[in-house]
Amino acid sequence: MWCGVSAALWPVRCRSFLLQCRNICSGNVGRKSVVDGVLPSFRSVCGEDGVSLSEAIREQHGKDESVHKCCPPDVVVFPRSVDEVSALAKICHMHCLPIIPFGTGTGLEGGVGAMKGGVCFSLRNMDQVLDLHVEDFDVTVEPGVTRKALNSYLRDTGLWFPVDPGADASLCGMAATSASGTNAVRYGTMRENIMNLEVVLADGTIINTAGKGRRPRKTSAGYNLTNLFVGSEGTLGIITKTTLRLYGIPEAVVSAVCSFPSVQAAVDSTVQILQSGVPIARIEFLDDVMIDACNRFSSLSYPVTPTLFLEFHGSERSLEEQVNTSEEITQCNGGSDFQWAKDEETRSRLWKARHDAWYAALALRPGCKAYATDVCVPLSMLPQIIVETKEDLIANKLTGPIAGHVGDGNFHCLMVLDPNDPDELQRVHLFTERLARRALAMSGTCTGEHGVGLGKRALLVEEMGAQAIQVMQSLKETLDPKNLMNPGKVLPVLCPSQSKI
Amino acid sequence: MWCGVSAALWPVRCRSFLLQCRNICSGNVGRKSVVDGVLPSFRSVCGEDGVSLSEAIREQHGKDESVHKCCPPDVVVFPRSVDEVSALAKICHMHCLPIIPFGTGTGLEGGVGAMKGGVCFSLRNMDQVLDLHVEDFDVTVEPGVTRKALNSYLRDTGLWFPVDPGADASLCGMAATSASGTNAVRYGTMRENIMNLEVVLADGTIINTAGKGRRPRKTSAGYNLTNLFVGSEGTLGIITKTTLRLYGIPEAVVSAVCSFPSVQAAVDSTVQILQSGVPIARIEFLDDVMIDACNRFSSLSYPVTPTLFLEFHGSERSLEEQVNTSEEITQCNGGSDFQWAKDEETRSRLWKARHDAWYAALALRPGCKAYATDVCVPLSMLPQIIVETKEDLIANKLTGPIAGHVGDGNFHCLMVLDPNDPDELQRVHLFTERLARRALAMSGTCTGEHGVGLGKRALLVEEMGAQAIQVMQSLKETLDPKNLMNPGKVLPVLCPSQSKI
Repeated sequence: MWCGVSAALWPVRCRSFLLQCRNICSGNVGRKSVVDGVLPSFRSVCGEDGVSLSEAIREQHGKDESVHKCCPPDVVVFPRSVDEVSALAKICHMHCLPIIPFGTGTGLEGGVGAMKGGVCFSLRNMDQVLDLHVEDFDVTVEPGVTRKALNSYLRDTGLWFPVDPGADASLCGMAATSASGTNAVRYGTMRENIMNLEVVLADGTIINTAGKGRRPRKTSAGYNLTNLFVGSEGTLGIITKTTLRLYGIPEAVVSAVCSFPSVQAAVDSTVQILQSGVPIARIEFLDDVMIDACNRFSSLSYPVTPTLFLEFHGSERSLEEQVNTSEEITQCNGGSDFQWAKDEETRSRLWKARHDAWYAALALRPGCKAYATDVCVPLSMLPQIIVETKEDLIANKLTGPIAGHVGDGNFHCLMVLDPNDPDELQRVHLFTERLARRALAMSGTCTGEHGVGLGKRALLVEEMGAQAIQVMQSLKETLDPKNLMNPGKVLPVLCPSQSKI
Repeated sequence: MWCGVSAALWPVRCRSFLLQCRNICSGNVGRKSVVDGVLPSFRSVCGEDGVSLSEAIREQHGKDESVHKCCPPDVVVFPRSVDEVSALAKICHMHCLPIIPFGTGTGLEGGVGAMKGGVCFSLRNMDQVLDLHVEDFDVTVEPGVTRKALNSYLRDTGLWFPVDPGADASLCGMAATSASGTNAVRYGTMRENIMNLEVVLADGTIINTAGKGRRPRKTSAGYNLTNLFVGSEGTLGIITKTTLRLYGIPEAVVSAVCSFPSVQAAVDSTVQILQSGVPIARIEFLDDVMIDACNRFSSLSYPVTPTLFLEFHGSERSLEEQVNTSEEITQCNGGSDFQWAKDEETRSRLWKARHDAWYAALALRPGCKAYATDVCVPLSMLPQIIVETKEDLIANKLTGPIAGHVGDGNFHCLMVLDPNDPDELQRVHLFTERLARRALAMSGTCTGEHGVGLGKRALLVEEMGAQAIQVMQSLKETLDPKNLMNPGKVLPVLCPSQSKI
């Protein structure tokens, strides 16, 4: 059987990789001398300025926006083209050096930490928007292009890219973590909006997951390599280009805010709005603690009760109907009248308040850090899981305002904690595990959009089951047999070769 | 490098599989004696009635609706549960017998032919609709459930499953070929509508691609195994369950037909309708030859010019706006007034005519067979490729009416040919290769929805490039090292073990 084949072959592979890599990777000293040895080769590829050993630069590239501790790489390289990425990867591969791709460092599960040192590939210098095809609704971008930069570039075309995780993340980084955010209920996540990827594999091989330059709106040609790399969090290859679907900028947009007597009433309204066929663009839930924090931080004055922020896209006329239907539904569920945000400025202020929820939560306890959890469950399970989770927060004296993309059944607790209080850190850790297991018990997932990174490897095993994890391990082993690509992330360590690198 | 690893390891694997399988699989005689030997084991798993050697049954399971020649399996088994599928797969695996999954046999690229004999797994007895969650818009079905059967089952729930390839295919078969069809422009293809799969691997291992029983609307948990199996055409595993997204049945539906002076005018209208943000549900192109054939076959009387069949879904009021916008656009492009199909009966007649295009084409040359080609290009390339293709058809004296899902840039030539005329067969073969290469030259794909099967393996290599094909090969090798799953399909034969099975 294939796992029998793995059983038969892995030890062989593992032994060989062990021999290859033990001397280099068993300790910092050995690895660092190897790094020193390859620096001239790195510099010959991307120039003096393209290689940095500065402690500040390495620290900056060793952490994301989570509470996971900083693990700086041994060196940071700044390639300027896919050929440079490939050449650098070949050097790392030959010398068994770990490779960690870096976009903007806005991840939330510790995905960029160099757990075993190695080489951070910062892709910020590859920042060109390529091949815009307005009539075909698609564009190709390099990994240094962020979602805001792309939408500024598109401003005069009548098109936009809607996936919006809040942070101004790099689009290739969003592909790597399968990001989504507030517009996913209408426009889908990165998975549904990526047509092609250019990827550099661990050995420097360059592939195009849908074939070079291909951009049909659909295809049945062979295995779906594109979606194998989307969400692989840098563990299978380095994404150096992504081709994205674009959308027409809606003729009109209105936003509204609605307050509810209970979580159940807010979620019931969400389900009924979706069932009624209203093509709602955004439907965001904020619990009483979250709306209170937003009121204080963004000088707003919404009632401190479970609240929905809604946004409708369409023609003037279709908006009127969408809004009327939605308002009827919310009122039947005891919701308040809609508070409108029609003009651009008021809408921007409203959504800035939503996107600033992170900072609003932080402001609840000055000097503390925030950690955003992320689970996703079937819609019908939302009221129960949110109510149980709020009880859990109170019982454990934790500050964790809740904000969620309820149209997808996805929500976050923005845990505010004192990083110098080990007891609180432990209570938060245990809380987030209970929350993830609560989601798993309700047919959900331990991560709807933040990814697995470092933080959720054990939960991934509970979610997928041993057999599916073994399949994932075998795919990783096939594409990255030396386990050089972002080692220690996503998958639990199983193979000796992997535990050694 | 990983391909180096493959280079190093494949020969080892290949030799071992060669030794394992050569005696069994090098010839019919050897294999058939093995089959005879395992029949008692098959019968002990799925009963006397669950195993058939009848020539008629084997013939029926050795071909689909394409012109690829019938390749009957040595035996057909009819498992009744996933445990029976797993037990049967274990027996096949132990004895190196090829496994060919069979749904309804409505494929169009020769995907079910038993190229090397072996065991056909007919899944028609696993026909239960499981776990319908109306409030969560999802349902899980066994592989014997067809799309029409599911929609009948859903009739009273207010929900439906929109992916509609025309044929009443099995939903798990549609997953295996990544099917789509007329509603994809609005609702997406199978890729976007599958939340989870239960799959039996070549060695009998049962996995759930998103974890057992999981059905969140989105997830970032680990590698996307679901989309690795969607479109794998039975070459990576047997799909025994699929969890699907459902949609609310629209409040109102209207269909319309519009005639155009040219292909360009019809396609320009399509692009402008999509750009204007009209959420059109169906927009189907028929060329003059196709509409003429449909007129004759379905007693219609549309003008014999390039034609669009359109369908709009929504509320009464939003429909009015969608239709007005679309009609304005078509008229600006020289289109006729819309001919309406508002009532259920007229709409059904209209779409039956569209779905009967296949038979309408056949009726152009009684006694002939039809072969449906399938390519997909970026929207802006459609007029050029359709015009060039019509010229090619005329220059080569071929009958090939064109029908297309133009909202996706996907279209088919329904080639009508005399299967007893080797010269015509050859001209059709060369024509379809030219058409596919024309699509590839325009950044498109050689198959938008029919899959690769037998017919397009060489074209897949041209489309993907050698490096991406090598990645696909390595994934196949990892999940099915003995190459037992539907051997000879999708990927070109590379490895000695594979060429022997």
